[in-house]
Amino acid sequence: MIAAPPIISMDRFFLFSVIFAVSSISGCFSAYSYTTQWIEVPVDHFSFANNDTFKLRYLKNDSFAHDPQSAAILFYTGNEGDIELFAENTGFMWDIVQPENRLNAELIFAEHRYYGQSLPYGNKSYDSTKQLGYLSSEQALADFVSLLQEINPGNKRPVIAVGGSYGGMLAAWFRMKYPHMVSGAIAASAPLLQFSSITPCEVYNRILTSVFATAYTHECASNIRKSWATLKSRSETDEGRAFLTKTFKLCTNLTKHEDISQLTDYLTDMYSNLAMVNYPYSANFLAPLPAYPVREFCGRLKEANLNDTQLIEALADGVSIYVNYTGKVQCLNMKSSTTDALGTKGWDFQACTEMVMPMCTDGIKKYGIRPRSDLEMISRYGGNQISTATNIVFSNGLMDPWSGAGILRSPNDHVKIVIIPEGAHHIDLRARNPKDSQAVIAARRIHLDAIREWISQN
Amino acid sequence: MIAAPPIISMDRFFLFSVIFAVSSISGCFSAYSYTTQWIEVPVDHFSFANNDTFKLRYLKNDSFAHDPQSAAILFYTGNEGDIELFAENTGFMWDIVQPENRLNAELIFAEHRYYGQSLPYGNKSYDSTKQLGYLSSEQALADFVSLLQEINPGNKRPVIAVGGSYGGMLAAWFRMKYPHMVSGAIAASAPLLQFSSITPCEVYNRILTSVFATAYTHECASNIRKSWATLKSRSETDEGRAFLTKTFKLCTNLTKHEDISQLTDYLTDMYSNLAMVNYPYSANFLAPLPAYPVREFCGRLKEANLNDTQLIEALADGVSIYVNYTGKVQCLNMKSSTTDALGTKGWDFQACTEMVMPMCTDGIKKYGIRPRSDLEMISRYGGNQISTATNIVFSNGLMDPWSGAGILRSPNDHVKIVIIPEGAHHIDLRARNPKDSQAVIAARRIHLDAIREWISQN
Repeated sequence: MIAAPPIISMDRFFLFSVIFAVSSISGCFSAYSYTTQWIEVPVDHFSFANNDTFKLRYLKNDSFAHDPQSAAILFYTGNEGDIELFAENTGFMWDIVQPENRLNAELIFAEHRYYGQSLPYGNKSYDSTKQLGYLSSEQALADFVSLLQEINPGNKRPVIAVGGSYGGMLAAWFRMKYPHMVSGAIAASAPLLQFSSITPCEVYNRILTSVFATAYTHECASNIRKSWATLKSRSETDEGRAFLTKTFKLCTNLTKHEDISQLTDYLTDMYSNLAMVNYPYSANFLAPLPAYPVREFCGRLKEANLNDTQLIEALADGVSIYVNYTGKVQCLNMKSSTTDALGTKGWDFQACTEMVMPMCTDGIKKYGIRPRSDLEMISRYGGNQISTATNIVFSNGLMDPWSGAGILRSPNDHVKIVIIPEGAHHIDLRARNPKDSQAVIAARRIHLDAIREWISQN
Repeated sequence: MIAAPPIISMDRFFLFSVIFAVSSISGCFSAYSYTTQWIEVPVDHFSFANNDTFKLRYLKNDSFAHDPQSAAILFYTGNEGDIELFAENTGFMWDIVQPENRLNAELIFAEHRYYGQSLPYGNKSYDSTKQLGYLSSEQALADFVSLLQEINPGNKRPVIAVGGSYGGMLAAWFRMKYPHMVSGAIAASAPLLQFSSITPCEVYNRILTSVFATAYTHECASNIRKSWATLKSRSETDEGRAFLTKTFKLCTNLTKHEDISQLTDYLTDMYSNLAMVNYPYSANFLAPLPAYPVREFCGRLKEANLNDTQLIEALADGVSIYVNYTGKVQCLNMKSSTTDALGTKGWDFQACTEMVMPMCTDGIKKYGIRPRSDLEMISRYGGNQISTATNIVFSNGLMDPWSGAGILRSPNDHVKIVIIPEGAHHIDLRARNPKDSQAVIAARRIHLDAIREWISQN
């Protein structure tokens, strides 16, 4: 990965895991109120060899429903992280249930098993595949089925699934696999086609590169490209490592040549994350960041013909926006971009089993399991052969690297496609903001119209 | 069960298990030729705690396909029994690939896991839930997905699922759950609604009773009704038990009062089975039987005002048609109606887990497992809420007791309903016969037209 690749040298599959984890990081404030509830579900929905059960968490707010008996259920299909973080970061759902919209709906945010507090085997849940083996998208969907069976007996009230990123994949699959339970789905920035035999490997990085190439000056992308070799060569001497440690304000000294991979991994994640959350307003989704953080970053790398020292200094300056926009962070912790609290333990496993990644040769060693081939996932969910799907809106921001694997063409009249040309990762699911572009506002209007239509069909 | 119930005292759930097993009994001749093939599949398709694999059997004949590269695949979704028996008893599939129909199709008969030779753990497969726990309809469907992924990469060729009874449920569910893999499904006599909260308990027995009440004289049903009490009272004395043993030609003597339950269980199964296979021609599906075996049986019970002895003698006379139509059977073996070779070990388990039966209070004791509630099965597959289903033909014979739980009304323009007024259990999937009624001939024509249409959509 540090072998000075042609453009930005990032393993898109590693990014895949990182970025999904990113979605679960949020601010610390709680703008929305809900009750926390639990439902007992089987650990294994599909076999009878393991009869254990566990408690799945979900959040509920029915205070906006003016007739609880007939109220629609807006159901967030929780993805890889603490469900409270998704509840906080899906302002769209909170916005549309406000009285002025007269939607008569309640909100449910269902936690995905093995994340947050929904741990089938408590703190032993990740100990081995004996416990962890029941972490899969299909089991998670079956949890949602169990939950809806409980809170909506007979499917009398219309249910709308909503999700972003991997949660958007789940929302779409939920509608496809259980249409009797889910009247429709809003799937935002859901890379349903992110399987190597459908989407060419380089698409992700091509979009990512263009985000950095067009944000300020084209030099930004060139400088990033040059920096990999410079970082590598500087890391080869004691003097160079001391320079890097000081310039990037690293929390731990680079002591040997190999340590540089930690820093380049960190940068790799950072580029991807910056593109994801490149929102037109200051936000605290992955990290506290200014509006348009990619432009801000590239503003520090706008010059051509920087020498090696200047290049590293400019890069470190840019990185400080990501690391320390608040000015309160003392040093760059190269291990801080993803943490256990964010469910990366679980996502690493999913990435190595069903969200099949090339890096799974490591996964086999790590978990001792047989990963599925990407063909298996395509067989299960249809891949790009979804002509029978109905009542789904797929939305994608074209400045989101994941959009290359999104559903950008409708297979039929019952599936709607929303494109947000300048949009980052599922910005349309965020709370409304004065800085929202017309395209984002329009996307949310399409979502709401679709939801109304699906509810009326019930 | 022997407590002299109002009409014909049969536990419909017990019947459910028996009758499905019945489908797997066939003649001994092999009219059709195929190659036997195997594919390795995971024991558990939905989790990663068990990484075992096993070999699933399937039968193939592509000799009728004039262009193997583009040939459609007629895919029998194997149910609870040896797949060779289903291949032999699904003459409809063999008939329609004959050259005069110009269908360009190959035949695949896929065995259901835990039946026939597709035993995940060999002769230990039924030892405990540790081995047996992976027997479920969802795992079976996932086996079929794996098989199609292998023989039809990229889903380039159209696939039509065909099945009868539980196999018909699988065919319909296969299309509903994996529409990208299956262009359409013929679901014959598939009791998709056979779950207690959807279909009233008494429907099965009501139809069964009417089959016997209308076959010859109404006295037949009255005599059967009377016989339960007579059998019970006769079994209370040594003399009565000797009389019953002799009259029914039992292989083992009735020695005590409780033994009578074996005989009444046998009769219970027999009535159901006779109605199932009440075909207009002599056949050997469950047992060698004459044409219209119910009429034949009722011909022996046509008189009114029989005394107790006459009633038992007439009943035994009727039973002999079922037991010994060939004249070669020496005695009535009360344990012979279902045998291990027919997959009843597996079906008993399915009946106690997902095909949820009231008798499962026994099942819990027997297997130590938590059965699913019937609501769970409805949640998984939709129950009667199948308005998004497309490209399925549901056929039912109205003289088939299972038809009361069949899909008799189309939810939309893309689902076709076929009614065969005088039809028994999935007679339309049998080979054509000069005695076929116009309704059966028409049903098969509708099936073929639908198959052609679905193939042309591909």
